[in-house]
Amino acid sequence: MYTIDFEPLGRRGRCRDSMSLLDCARQCGVGISSVCGGHGTCGSCRVRIASGNVSEPTSREREVFTPRELRSGWRLACQTYPRSHCRVTVPAESMTTTQRVQVEGILAPVTPEPAVQDCQVRLAPPSLSDLTADAGRLLEALNQQCKIHCDLVDIEVLRALPGQLRSWDWECRASVRSGELVAIIPRSGRQLGLAIDLGTTKIAGYLVDLGDGDTLAARGVMNPQISYGEDIISRINASIASPDAGMKLHGLVIDAINQLANDLCNAVHVSTGEIVDAVVVGNTVMHHLFLGLPVSQLARAPYVPAVSRSLDIKARDVGLEIAGGAYVHLLPNIAGFVGADHVAMLLATTDRQRAGSIIAIDIGTNTEVSCISNGEITAVSCASGPAFEGGHITDGMRAASGAIERLRVTGDDIQYQTIDDVPPAGLCGSGILDALAQLYLAGIIDAGGRMKDNHPRIHRRQKQREFRLVSREERGGLPPIVITQSDIRALQLAKAAIRTGIEVLLNTSGITEQQIKQVIIAGAFGSYIDVTSAITIGMLPPLPPGCFRQVGNAAGAGARRALLSLNERAEARQIASRVHYVELASVPDFTPTFMAASYLGRYRIRNGKREEIG
Amino acid sequence: MYTIDFEPLGRRGRCRDSMSLLDCARQCGVGISSVCGGHGTCGSCRVRIASGNVSEPTSREREVFTPRELRSGWRLACQTYPRSHCRVTVPAESMTTTQRVQVEGILAPVTPEPAVQDCQVRLAPPSLSDLTADAGRLLEALNQQCKIHCDLVDIEVLRALPGQLRSWDWECRASVRSGELVAIIPRSGRQLGLAIDLGTTKIAGYLVDLGDGDTLAARGVMNPQISYGEDIISRINASIASPDAGMKLHGLVIDAINQLANDLCNAVHVSTGEIVDAVVVGNTVMHHLFLGLPVSQLARAPYVPAVSRSLDIKARDVGLEIAGGAYVHLLPNIAGFVGADHVAMLLATTDRQRAGSIIAIDIGTNTEVSCISNGEITAVSCASGPAFEGGHITDGMRAASGAIERLRVTGDDIQYQTIDDVPPAGLCGSGILDALAQLYLAGIIDAGGRMKDNHPRIHRRQKQREFRLVSREERGGLPPIVITQSDIRALQLAKAAIRTGIEVLLNTSGITEQQIKQVIIAGAFGSYIDVTSAITIGMLPPLPPGCFRQVGNAAGAGARRALLSLNERAEARQIASRVHYVELASVPDFTPTFMAASYLGRYRIRNGKREEIG
Repeated sequence: MYTIDFEPLGRRGRCRDSMSLLDCARQCGVGISSVCGGHGTCGSCRVRIASGNVSEPTSREREVFTPRELRSGWRLACQTYPRSHCRVTVPAESMTTTQRVQVEGILAPVTPEPAVQDCQVRLAPPSLSDLTADAGRLLEALNQQCKIHCDLVDIEVLRALPGQLRSWDWECRASVRSGELVAIIPRSGRQLGLAIDLGTTKIAGYLVDLGDGDTLAARGVMNPQISYGEDIISRINASIASPDAGMKLHGLVIDAINQLANDLCNAVHVSTGEIVDAVVVGNTVMHHLFLGLPVSQLARAPYVPAVSRSLDIKARDVGLEIAGGAYVHLLPNIAGFVGADHVAMLLATTDRQRAGSIIAIDIGTNTEVSCISNGEITAVSCASGPAFEGGHITDGMRAASGAIERLRVTGDDIQYQTIDDVPPAGLCGSGILDALAQLYLAGIIDAGGRMKDNHPRIHRRQKQREFRLVSREERGGLPPIVITQSDIRALQLAKAAIRTGIEVLLNTSGITEQQIKQVIIAGAFGSYIDVTSAITIGMLPPLPPGCFRQVGNAAGAGARRALLSLNERAEARQIASRVHYVELASVPDFTPTFMAASYLGRYRIRNGKREEIG
Repeated sequence: MYTIDFEPLGRRGRCRDSMSLLDCARQCGVGISSVCGGHGTCGSCRVRIASGNVSEPTSREREVFTPRELRSGWRLACQTYPRSHCRVTVPAESMTTTQRVQVEGILAPVTPEPAVQDCQVRLAPPSLSDLTADAGRLLEALNQQCKIHCDLVDIEVLRALPGQLRSWDWECRASVRSGELVAIIPRSGRQLGLAIDLGTTKIAGYLVDLGDGDTLAARGVMNPQISYGEDIISRINASIASPDAGMKLHGLVIDAINQLANDLCNAVHVSTGEIVDAVVVGNTVMHHLFLGLPVSQLARAPYVPAVSRSLDIKARDVGLEIAGGAYVHLLPNIAGFVGADHVAMLLATTDRQRAGSIIAIDIGTNTEVSCISNGEITAVSCASGPAFEGGHITDGMRAASGAIERLRVTGDDIQYQTIDDVPPAGLCGSGILDALAQLYLAGIIDAGGRMKDNHPRIHRRQKQREFRLVSREERGGLPPIVITQSDIRALQLAKAAIRTGIEVLLNTSGITEQQIKQVIIAGAFGSYIDVTSAITIGMLPPLPPGCFRQVGNAAGAGARRALLSLNERAEARQIASRVHYVELASVPDFTPTFMAASYLGRYRIRNGKREEIG
């Protein structure tokens, strides 16, 4: 029996020498990707042995890794057996989707310096010889007991104050923001903050302890506005079509966030009244709809937002049900289609001291890309559409139980792995990307995206070809899971939009692909994809795998940073003010660039090296 | 035909030499009091000839005035005929009630220095080469075109901004308060302010031009909370009895103020959206109910308010429907029963440079009295009740058309004057006071308040005596207008409460009656009373009539001062912080003082001199 430490998750397990590292990982709840089911053929369970002794490399591993990689400790978890206590590093790309969400915590820590000051006070009750009013009594105590100078009392706090002070026996915990009393809670309460990443499709919420910076609970829900359309353009159109729809869209998202805040609080047995500060990030349209601002001007040239600067708004003024006088902070927007969520992502991910050029991509229904080079930030926005989130793809589905998240084509055989290891129900974004790359590498589709007729799984239905990834027989009589010629066209448009954005940025910034030191990929989809597949289809430039950093919900992480620290808010303003926004449509060679970008890739990455395809 | 100028009203009329000054005044709309109907017997139409020639004094006038007074120009308007162009001064006490309201304007003017800065701007529309967001565009223009530094935009203003700027062709007038944009209106709009004196019984509203300080419209309405009880104690009790009642009382008063604001705006053809600032004053309970604060703690010792300090609250947070982001300022309270209205009254009336001791009284359902002496302010609150507003008095009524406002007893005959000179319907406060004083002087009631049985108008009904001021015959068959023994007892309690307050203040401040230089009487009732009657019944100390200054709705005037000037708000805070509040109930010799004060007066004022009664 050996002790195995899996990093960076910090999970520890006990392992017999008859168990592979993959078995051991599964036993202790570490989700390592395994497309082939542990036969050493797919190469998806790569790990690095940081210390300790393990079994010798198998012949399969010698095929997958270079001798240098093997010397550095790279191994396939399914082929490796421990021979002593070991420390095993699991890279993000080897983790299952559900596991990756937990990895986000690896982002740099931030020192709490919240917008809200905290003071626990004990007051002398009023008497005939001390007739000071309740509010004055409390403010005086804040000054004396915590050296907090506070001049203003929020009206909601004031309304509850006389009853609360009396029922809490003249003791409480007070939250003061810029000289204003924004909340009082019982003396034993906690000062909490709420960070929200408001996406077009999903809303991610984080409940944070403002004292120590810990994230107490995290949860994601669907954005209920989706019933008004999947992308931001349809949301804008809905709000233009009917005068009420704008406020209806506002109300929907507020209700969802209130429910989310409630659920987060219930999970850790606290009350939403203890949430004394909040930060919300989203793209410009989500930002505007959250605030109840009109969006029609975002649909007409020159696409200017109602407001770009950062905002501090009373939470109740947008309908958020948190502490009585609490504010919600909104990070600045950059332009009509590059919003506060991108600022948050840059805040969370870009090491500001770092030299060298960085590309930062937040992939979603709308994809924002920034290029940080020589202290300049240039940003574009790409209408990538919902294909990568499974939208408008025949058998596409959200990343839920049963979704195929990894896929390999080996001759006539298809190997795949589903979320939660249950029978397949459809393809989520990363599975769709793998399928496109694998069909291309197998010569089933050509570089122009045309499906050939050279494989027994290709069928013709409703006037177009489709590739049956899982047949009716394999599904026990259920309809087959397919990828159609139309699906491929939709994926080409989506990936071309993103690649065009990257190319335009490189041109504008005057740097070459080779000068890129790092590509940061954020967003749910971006964090789960196999980067090599993305390179194969030509969505990402063919750089060495070590250049890519998949950082999960970086916008959410940025929101939490801003929630925890006024310095981070200042930094976000700084970032936003430095960004040079490029309107893609106004770039002279947009059309040829887009046409070129719609072809599948010229290169694949194999064993860390780039090879020409074909 | 002579030209007659009536001052301080500034009204000019033309007069034939066959017309008395009284006739001339009536003809040009100057309301001079005339109880006896112009027969020279009541002495209520006193005026002073400031310049010009008039007829010789009649024998009636020689009875009413001293030779010195006649030499100074004092005359009865009904006995005096012009012989040249004249300037005639009409003292407040000779005016009818309706006329007096207009006199309030004589209070010292204030230089406008409003809380809200004004800027008319013209913006360049956005273009593909200037993508600045709407808010940023406007804030930049404020800085460049008006040197106004503005960082924040109210969320309601922001919501309307994109549509308004576009529909107004990128021109507007902006209101900025402490670096926050609180309103934008069309470029041709006016910046208006709303001042509210929120009384227990009545609400007075003033619409003010913040640019030049002019009061554009003024209006009074009943406080609809009256359905929950006439005095503040019953309002508090109502709000304690049912959890919803507090918010219901809040809602009632807000609805009434919104309606009042609407009416004021309609009267001068402006919109409530042009009201960019507001000031509200009221007693502490009204103040709390206006804000939606709990009041139960005001009913229990030690009667501390939820808040005393001055407040700036978003108008929408209390439900006021004025400009989107406008604030409402509340002057500070002094104690549980000395509120912001008293501070406003002191602000409006006390000449801060003036030497000598001043008593300032705001008579209402609750009466506040302050003594200003040697730079110290001491205040008390007296529960005077609704008797002076006609409440709980058999034939009492509000000061409306048909109310007897002046009354004289001459032998068996009763002379009176009604509001609007229509047949009598009842007695308003000043009429009640006159009645009590006249019955006392005529020996019909004794100093202890007991009604004798020595007059043909005295009758016995329902086990008590009553004096029929107007008989059934005189009313053409309608029931008689009476004053009963119970009425007299109620009036004694009311006047004793006020006199006790004055006595306690004098004792506390260590000054004597003779050291009082001025008695300022504010409030609707206080402005309409005959001061000599108030002295006769012992409600006010027997000082020379020249000491008394009846200033009308001084709280409303103070509210307007605070609306117009930040300096005045600072001064109000200064006043409130200097006030030493004395809790009447805790004064050691309260009971004997009150007992003594319930006796009717020992002195009357006759021809400006004090005489012992009896």
